[in-house]
Amino acid sequence: MERAGIPATTIQRLPLYLRCLLQAEEQRIPLVNSGTLAEMCGTNAAQIRKDLSYLGELGTRGIGYEVRALIEHISAVLGITERRRAVLVGFGRFGGALLGYPGFAERGFDIVAVFDSDPDKIGVSVGGLTVLSVDELEGVLQATGAEIAIMTTPGDVTQELADRLVRAGVRGILNLAPVRLVVPEGVAVRQVCLSTDLQVLSFHLAQNTL
Amino acid sequence: MERAGIPATTIQRLPLYLRCLLQAEEQRIPLVNSGTLAEMCGTNAAQIRKDLSYLGELGTRGIGYEVRALIEHISAVLGITERRRAVLVGFGRFGGALLGYPGFAERGFDIVAVFDSDPDKIGVSVGGLTVLSVDELEGVLQATGAEIAIMTTPGDVTQELADRLVRAGVRGILNLAPVRLVVPEGVAVRQVCLSTDLQVLSFHLAQNTL
Repeated sequence: MERAGIPATTIQRLPLYLRCLLQAEEQRIPLVNSGTLAEMCGTNAAQIRKDLSYLGELGTRGIGYEVRALIEHISAVLGITERRRAVLVGFGRFGGALLGYPGFAERGFDIVAVFDSDPDKIGVSVGGLTVLSVDELEGVLQATGAEIAIMTTPGDVTQELADRLVRAGVRGILNLAPVRLVVPEGVAVRQVCLSTDLQVLSFHLAQNTL
Repeated sequence: MERAGIPATTIQRLPLYLRCLLQAEEQRIPLVNSGTLAEMCGTNAAQIRKDLSYLGELGTRGIGYEVRALIEHISAVLGITERRRAVLVGFGRFGGALLGYPGFAERGFDIVAVFDSDPDKIGVSVGGLTVLSVDELEGVLQATGAEIAIMTTPGDVTQELADRLVRAGVRGILNLAPVRLVVPEGVAVRQVCLSTDLQVLSFHLAQNTL
């Protein structure tokens, strides 16, 4: 496959293109050119042509891209042609909100287990799942084969839990805890920090005031 | 000020450095060198020296950086020396979770109003605030002078609400809705999309399997 050598910034834009293509398909549009797709995505046509060129020979000059074929191709590159299993670690305020979020399942990610360490939360039923003790982490990961963990744990226990998750086979972590994780090579981490995002916004505000 | 010309990637790392420096200060460490700071941040010393070099002449060769001075300097660059006011638009699952999140206030961002369009939610008291109707958006923004909006609204109404927010003086938007916003120049947007993050993780998983 042509996956190697795709720039990280291109990878980050593929989910956006995919979302726009799925919208086009819903509107029964069979073909799009880079201009139309750019407009749907709020980006520019040259960027789209360049990004898609990394994925191989796609589209026909003067005609455009077949929407269905491009959806399938991008899905294959992103590895989302089959469903992926994820566990949620931390059933606090954010964990609870995430568990009810339909976007994950719609995009092929099934949350198959949820963990917490608080005895008051363990055993609670939520969205067809029962909150499990973190003591059961290893056993459940082995049983479900989940490869992804979404972490919404307090900062001080997050690294230790991440280490256990990785030892038990997790290879991708979406980290919402305010901690920079250290993981072995071969494990991917995406860090989400809303306070950091606000501080970056603040920088732009401060700059405009000058 | 030396704010112009700082690369976007450097700006994105400054909040991390700031967090680590605040930790160092808590531990009563008066001076750090780039190696120590790199270790605390999970990055490398050369990166830190390069990033900080954009902020001007900081630190002393062979000695390091004064923790308090560097905190103040980075805070000034990020424009967070004074508190900033934000409004939350959308009091759903995520909105509710965000409203209880202490990280915003700790980092100098005060949520001064929360809006929704659902009559069942309008009037609800939460964390010292009362959920207001989106009809009151313009009036409240004028009264509070809030410059930042955190949006957790359904996709189909988000752009329209963003337009109203911008017209009413908002210059920074943290967007958690699954929509790419179009805003005029001078308005900064940070897009948070957890499904996209999962798809990027999925790409890494698929790549490792090859």
